[in-house]
Amino acid sequence: MNDSYLKFVNSPFGGRLARSLGLPKPEVLRRYRADRPEFDGLIAIGAGREPRLFDALASLIATLGMTSVAHESAGLWVPLAHRHGLMTGRFEPAEAGAPGKLAALMFDASGIDDSSLLEPLHGFFHDTLRSLGKCGRIVVLGRPPEACASPRQWTAQRALEGLVRSLGKEARRGIAANLVYVEEGAENAIEATLRFFLSPRSAYVSGQVVRIAAHGAPPHDAPAFDWLDWRQPLAGRRALVTGAARGIGAAIASVLAAEGAHVIGLDIPSARDALDATMRQLNGSPLAFDIAAPEAPAQIAAALDELGVDIVVHNAGITKDKTIAKMTDAVWQSVIDINLSAQERIDDALLAGGILRDGGRIVAVSSIGGIAGNAGQTNYATSKAGVIGRVQSMAPPLRARGITINAVAPGFIETQMTAKIPLAIREAGRRMNSMSQGGQPVDVAQTIAWLAHPGSAGVTGQVVRVCGQSLIGA
Amino acid sequence: MNDSYLKFVNSPFGGRLARSLGLPKPEVLRRYRADRPEFDGLIAIGAGREPRLFDALASLIATLGMTSVAHESAGLWVPLAHRHGLMTGRFEPAEAGAPGKLAALMFDASGIDDSSLLEPLHGFFHDTLRSLGKCGRIVVLGRPPEACASPRQWTAQRALEGLVRSLGKEARRGIAANLVYVEEGAENAIEATLRFFLSPRSAYVSGQVVRIAAHGAPPHDAPAFDWLDWRQPLAGRRALVTGAARGIGAAIASVLAAEGAHVIGLDIPSARDALDATMRQLNGSPLAFDIAAPEAPAQIAAALDELGVDIVVHNAGITKDKTIAKMTDAVWQSVIDINLSAQERIDDALLAGGILRDGGRIVAVSSIGGIAGNAGQTNYATSKAGVIGRVQSMAPPLRARGITINAVAPGFIETQMTAKIPLAIREAGRRMNSMSQGGQPVDVAQTIAWLAHPGSAGVTGQVVRVCGQSLIGA
Repeated sequence: MNDSYLKFVNSPFGGRLARSLGLPKPEVLRRYRADRPEFDGLIAIGAGREPRLFDALASLIATLGMTSVAHESAGLWVPLAHRHGLMTGRFEPAEAGAPGKLAALMFDASGIDDSSLLEPLHGFFHDTLRSLGKCGRIVVLGRPPEACASPRQWTAQRALEGLVRSLGKEARRGIAANLVYVEEGAENAIEATLRFFLSPRSAYVSGQVVRIAAHGAPPHDAPAFDWLDWRQPLAGRRALVTGAARGIGAAIASVLAAEGAHVIGLDIPSARDALDATMRQLNGSPLAFDIAAPEAPAQIAAALDELGVDIVVHNAGITKDKTIAKMTDAVWQSVIDINLSAQERIDDALLAGGILRDGGRIVAVSSIGGIAGNAGQTNYATSKAGVIGRVQSMAPPLRARGITINAVAPGFIETQMTAKIPLAIREAGRRMNSMSQGGQPVDVAQTIAWLAHPGSAGVTGQVVRVCGQSLIGA
Repeated sequence: MNDSYLKFVNSPFGGRLARSLGLPKPEVLRRYRADRPEFDGLIAIGAGREPRLFDALASLIATLGMTSVAHESAGLWVPLAHRHGLMTGRFEPAEAGAPGKLAALMFDASGIDDSSLLEPLHGFFHDTLRSLGKCGRIVVLGRPPEACASPRQWTAQRALEGLVRSLGKEARRGIAANLVYVEEGAENAIEATLRFFLSPRSAYVSGQVVRIAAHGAPPHDAPAFDWLDWRQPLAGRRALVTGAARGIGAAIASVLAAEGAHVIGLDIPSARDALDATMRQLNGSPLAFDIAAPEAPAQIAAALDELGVDIVVHNAGITKDKTIAKMTDAVWQSVIDINLSAQERIDDALLAGGILRDGGRIVAVSSIGGIAGNAGQTNYATSKAGVIGRVQSMAPPLRARGITINAVAPGFIETQMTAKIPLAIREAGRRMNSMSQGGQPVDVAQTIAWLAHPGSAGVTGQVVRVCGQSLIGA
């Protein structure tokens, strides 16, 4: 729970010592606080030819109250921004001598349809990256490659992934870089996702690729989600969170409650006291069931039946690490059952009875281990890879009901569990990412809150890592 | 080119020293040699319920002349193997005390359609993994998740990825673990791919997931590719290899020639002497063009026009590393152009003229950097991510002509280029994978030869890493 090195190198003496020894200096990440402005500072805008998202972006940035500066690659931005009543200016490369001037860099690559047209990306980041401040934000916008009309366009759009992942690794200083593919027709559905990636809420989410589908987006000429209260977006919603008594689950419950949801926290009967305490703090409702029990799905469905539920977060999970040669059947089976099969059984019960309402949200917790595999975790990695299969397979059939299903895959998160890892391995896990530190439970929780948002209707079937752009992957 | 640590720890003194200090002990990997049997030893067979690939597997193993032993999970194997005239017995867990007894472990998971049915995978690898010898092979077979009829089946099949990747990381000792998804109807098209993954040719390919599509497979009741000469599968084929003068390109040319192909080696005019020497050795034809030149595609097409070409390997590539803030336009543009756009221009010229014949094979070289991104390589990673887009986007339209297009993504390969990396970074790159060593150019070449094989018609649009299961990924 406690990264003493992070504190030390951010003290005056520790910082000098780290510099003289050439040690990594992780930034203290800026995280969301209700008492601080969520969006402020300058955002630099760049673009390839024929940017298709400028209208939506100008409208969004005006709403957020940010001031934009247009890079020379974004010639069309200034007149458009003025039409949206947006404070704007031109980015002068000469000012690049003023580091920390910019809060965010945003590039609209949606019109790039050939690899020979990628150069403006270089020009923009070449000119602006040094002016981006600590904990700044990089967002590149493109079109989903697999929906492109020609192989050349698909190729150019797919190339953006290599750029964004490299920028995240190169920028350091707590800067997050992410790629958002916006499907044609989804231009009016980008707000919830771009708010997340521009906000301190996404502090530990970097090197990720997210797709926004047109399904569920408001029509092109309608105002985008202007009925939403962005301060309490989950007001009136009911959210079931499994494994909610402590740790990441309690953080998820807490963030969803802060966003306005009524939380029903579920945990095993033996954690009843902690669960009750957590739920009391949040004005939530405790639900003490063992999800491994065959009767649990029906019991949960019965407990939720009257008022229904809008958000289901499958967070409950266990590890029982052993090499496979030493792993008993019971150990294998319990991890697969609790981490994977129980999620399937509970969703079936909630979906069959219509207890999870239309327009609902399912978020399941996977893991980097489920993506990359891990020695000593054949059971855990199998279960967490299965969770990825769950969201990929269920997203299409749930679309008709407006229900989304996504996974988050945490990397190294500072919890009681990771505090028990031997020091050397813990330090390696903490530092082997672009932030040079572990994440906090709230980072996972904020990512889930974005996916649970009413404005995230176009985001489904996806896996988002919360890992500070860990080196480890597949 | 020279991993002196690998040699040292495999000497009697070095081995003792490494053991006493707890240092990693990379195995000397067994690689393909024409003068040694490619397939020998015992293969243990396991299965989930209703294995759908047993017929095809029994026929394959009989062809390879291997002896099988059936694990208790594979009760149906013994009678079936006898019908195929296959030497077979039963695997006795009691024999697990005899380490190194087995050459390969193969599990048919194709019939598993629910996460609650994954247990036989645990039982099989629990019982057999310790009996698998150095440089042994693990192959798990399943169905492509995205083609599964139900979300439950998709989920269970997708879970296999987490298991296989964990087994690769856990097994060590030069053992490779890979997952092959066989589409329904492609049962008769598995031979080339399984030969590769069971052979020492795949020494440095581990933790990979490959799909075999039914498209291009012989009909279910026809004998599978029995017209093929498996010793000279590329006999009569003409193969263009770019960047063929030296290094990985020369290794590719050499392996394709050894498999029977006539190689046309292309390189820049300044490498003419090395190119001529390499081609003389292989009875190949040199072609000296600068692929960056606008007229190159037409010149290459003209040079190949009369006899056509069956295999195109886009290997030529450059690196020019700089942080983006210090990278000039020219440096960005030349890397994108040579590594990505030139491939597009050449393929367009060869495809438009029908110079690349129907049934042809395109293999493009990507990189782990294109998957994960890399600091100081925004240009390189963008180009190599674009290569992935190329194979994904062009595979569907090329299917009608029976042409496949795939990418290989090398990790740390011992070449003159990597020999120039500073020692500490080179050592990290070498050891951060399940083989604890860098790969050899021949490992990339053998992977390309498999993709170029006439029996690989069902393998297209895919990216195969040649990285010893590097930790690094996305």
